[in-house]
Amino acid sequence: MTKVYDLDTPSVTIDLDRLEKNIKRVQEMVSAKGMKNRPHIKTHKIPDIAKMQLAAGASGLTCQKLSETEVFVDAGLTDDILITFDIVGEKKTEHLMRLADRVNKLTVVADNETVVRGLSEAGVRHGKDVPILIECDVGFGRNGVQSPEAALSLARLAMNLPRVKFEGVMAFPTVGEKAVSFLSGALELFKAEGIPVPVVSGGGTPALLSLGDFPMVTEHRPGTYVFNDVMMVHSGIATWDDCALTVRATVVSLPTGDRGIIDAGSKALTREQYYVKNFGKVVEYPGAVVNNMSEEHGMIDFSGSETRPKVGDVINIIPNHCCVCINMHDKVFGIRGEDVEIEWPVAARGKLT
Amino acid sequence: MTKVYDLDTPSVTIDLDRLEKNIKRVQEMVSAKGMKNRPHIKTHKIPDIAKMQLAAGASGLTCQKLSETEVFVDAGLTDDILITFDIVGEKKTEHLMRLADRVNKLTVVADNETVVRGLSEAGVRHGKDVPILIECDVGFGRNGVQSPEAALSLARLAMNLPRVKFEGVMAFPTVGEKAVSFLSGALELFKAEGIPVPVVSGGGTPALLSLGDFPMVTEHRPGTYVFNDVMMVHSGIATWDDCALTVRATVVSLPTGDRGIIDAGSKALTREQYYVKNFGKVVEYPGAVVNNMSEEHGMIDFSGSETRPKVGDVINIIPNHCCVCINMHDKVFGIRGEDVEIEWPVAARGKLT
Repeated sequence: MTKVYDLDTPSVTIDLDRLEKNIKRVQEMVSAKGMKNRPHIKTHKIPDIAKMQLAAGASGLTCQKLSETEVFVDAGLTDDILITFDIVGEKKTEHLMRLADRVNKLTVVADNETVVRGLSEAGVRHGKDVPILIECDVGFGRNGVQSPEAALSLARLAMNLPRVKFEGVMAFPTVGEKAVSFLSGALELFKAEGIPVPVVSGGGTPALLSLGDFPMVTEHRPGTYVFNDVMMVHSGIATWDDCALTVRATVVSLPTGDRGIIDAGSKALTREQYYVKNFGKVVEYPGAVVNNMSEEHGMIDFSGSETRPKVGDVINIIPNHCCVCINMHDKVFGIRGEDVEIEWPVAARGKLT
Repeated sequence: MTKVYDLDTPSVTIDLDRLEKNIKRVQEMVSAKGMKNRPHIKTHKIPDIAKMQLAAGASGLTCQKLSETEVFVDAGLTDDILITFDIVGEKKTEHLMRLADRVNKLTVVADNETVVRGLSEAGVRHGKDVPILIECDVGFGRNGVQSPEAALSLARLAMNLPRVKFEGVMAFPTVGEKAVSFLSGALELFKAEGIPVPVVSGGGTPALLSLGDFPMVTEHRPGTYVFNDVMMVHSGIATWDDCALTVRATVVSLPTGDRGIIDAGSKALTREQYYVKNFGKVVEYPGAVVNNMSEEHGMIDFSGSETRPKVGDVINIIPNHCCVCINMHDKVFGIRGEDVEIEWPVAARGKLT
C-alpha cells in the first residue's frame, strides 16, 4: 500500500477518520434541531464524499453551478439537488433543463425578475415544472432580495408565471439578528397572505453554532465542515483536530535563519486571507507563519518557532479555506495513519459554468 | 465560426492581435539590449503560445516545476529549458533526469547545498551532467543565496562535485539598486577568482523597464507580458490596450442600485490583490470596482459608474494577475474581433509537482 511519505509534493491529503467524524457530528447537530441537512458539495467536489454524507442521513445536496451539478448527476447522485445560484440566459436554462430530466427533484434559487421569467420560459419550452426558492440577502451583502416585501413580491411573480413553482426562501449565511428578523418578517408576511412556505433553507458551517436562533429553518446547507480549515477553527465550530485536509509540502530552501521556502504557493494553497494575516497553519511548527506566497513558493517565517526544519523535510499546512484549496488540485489522497487508502479525482474541480 | 458572444460564462478569452503584438514588442525590447529572451511559460501554460514566443526569437523557455516542464516537453519543446525552482529529494531528481533525457539542454537553479548535492548524486546515478545556475536573492526576500560571497561558495561546491556544471547566476526580479549591486558584486568576485560566469539570468516583466540598468544580464525571463493585467498596467510596462486576457462574466443580479453580482468569483479570477484594493478591472464600466468575491460570485460596486448593466449582460474583467487566473481554467478561447479562432486547453494548468 502506498504510504503518505511516498506522495510527491505538494499534494493534498484527507484524514479519513476525521472526515468520517465530521460528517457524523454535523449530521447529528442538524438532525437534533429537527432540520434536514443538505450539505454543499462545493467544499469537496468529490461524488464519493457526497455519498458518505447521504449515507449519514443528508436529505439532499447543494451545488453552486450547473457544470458542477452535472458531475454529481453523472456519478449517480440524482435524487434531490438544490442549485444556489441565479441561472441566467437561455444557454444556461437549457443546461438546467437537461439536468432536470435526470434528477428526481432539481430546485433552483432566484433573486430577481429576469431569472424567474427565464426559468418560467424554460419550463414552458420543456413542459416541465421548475421548483424555486427566493434568495434573501439577510445581511451578507451578496445576492438576494433586500426585504421581506421584495421576497413576497418575487414569490407572487413566480406564482403567476407558468411552470415555476414557488417552494420557499433561501439565505446565506443564517447568522445574526438581521437574518433572524428578515426571515421571521418574511414568514409572517407570507402567512398573512396565506402563502405556504414549505422550505426555509439556511446555510453555512459557522452557522451551525446558532441553529437554535433559527427555528424557522427547515433545512441547513453546511459545506466546509467535512474538512474544516483555519477559518472554521477561528469561527469556533471546529478544533485543529477536526481539520481533515492538509497540503503536504517540501521545504526546498532556508535562505536565512528565519525564512523557509516550501514548494506550495498560491497555486497549491490559494491567497485566501480572511481575518488571519497568514496563508495557512503549519502543523509541525505552531509558531511559524506562512507570511507570503508566490505561485509556486510559500514563504514561512520561523522566527516565532523554537525549532527549524531542514531542506527536504515535508511539512503539512492546514489551508485558511479548504473549499478553494481543493479546487487547485486534480486529485487528493485519503489517508488513515500512514496508509494512503484511496486516491480521489477532484471531479468537479474548475467547474465554473 | 463560433462567436465570442456564443461562449458560456465565465470563460477566458485571449485577444490574438494583442497577444501577437505583446510577443513581438518584448522580444524586440530584450533583443535591442543584446540579451537573450527566455520567456517564462507559467503565464500562459500553453505550448502553442510558447511556440509563438520561440518563433518570434526567444532563445529558450523558463518553467517553474517539473510536471509543468513535462507538458512542454511532451508538446515537442525540447531544445532549451531552464527550471527556476530548487529540485529537492530523489523522487524529484529522478523526474528531472527523465526529462533531461528528452531535452537538448535542461538547466536548473540551486540556492543551497542540499540541492546541489542532490543534483550531483542524480547526475552520477545517470551518468549525465546537470547544468546549474546559482539563485541569488537580490532583494525579493524569497529563494536565493544572501550575498555574492555565498554565491561564490555554492558555485565552488558545485565545481567540486561530480556531474553538476556551474554555468552562472539567476535572480528574480532584476529591479532596483540592490539587485544591481548584488549582481555586479558577484561578478567581480567570480572574476577575481578566475571563474567564468557565462549566464546571468534576470527576470520579470516590469523589469523590462530597467533592462538598461543591468548590462551584465545575458538573458531575461519575462512572463506576464504575453497577456498583461492590472498589475502590469500599474507597473507602467503596459497599457489597458495591451491587456490580451479577459474573463467574460454574466451579470446575474443587481440586488441594490449600486451592487451587481457576476458569475465569476475567486474560482474564476482568484483573490489576488497586490497594490490594488480591487479584484480586477471592469472593461465596460471603468468607474466600477470588483470589491468583493465569493467562490462563484463577483460583487461589483457600480456607485462610481454613471451607467449600470442589466441582468443578463456580459462584461469583461481584466484580472489583477493573469498567470494565476489562467490556472483556474481548463481552456481559453483565442479571439479576433468577434470570432473565436481557437480553443486552447491550458495544458500545464494545475501542474504543481
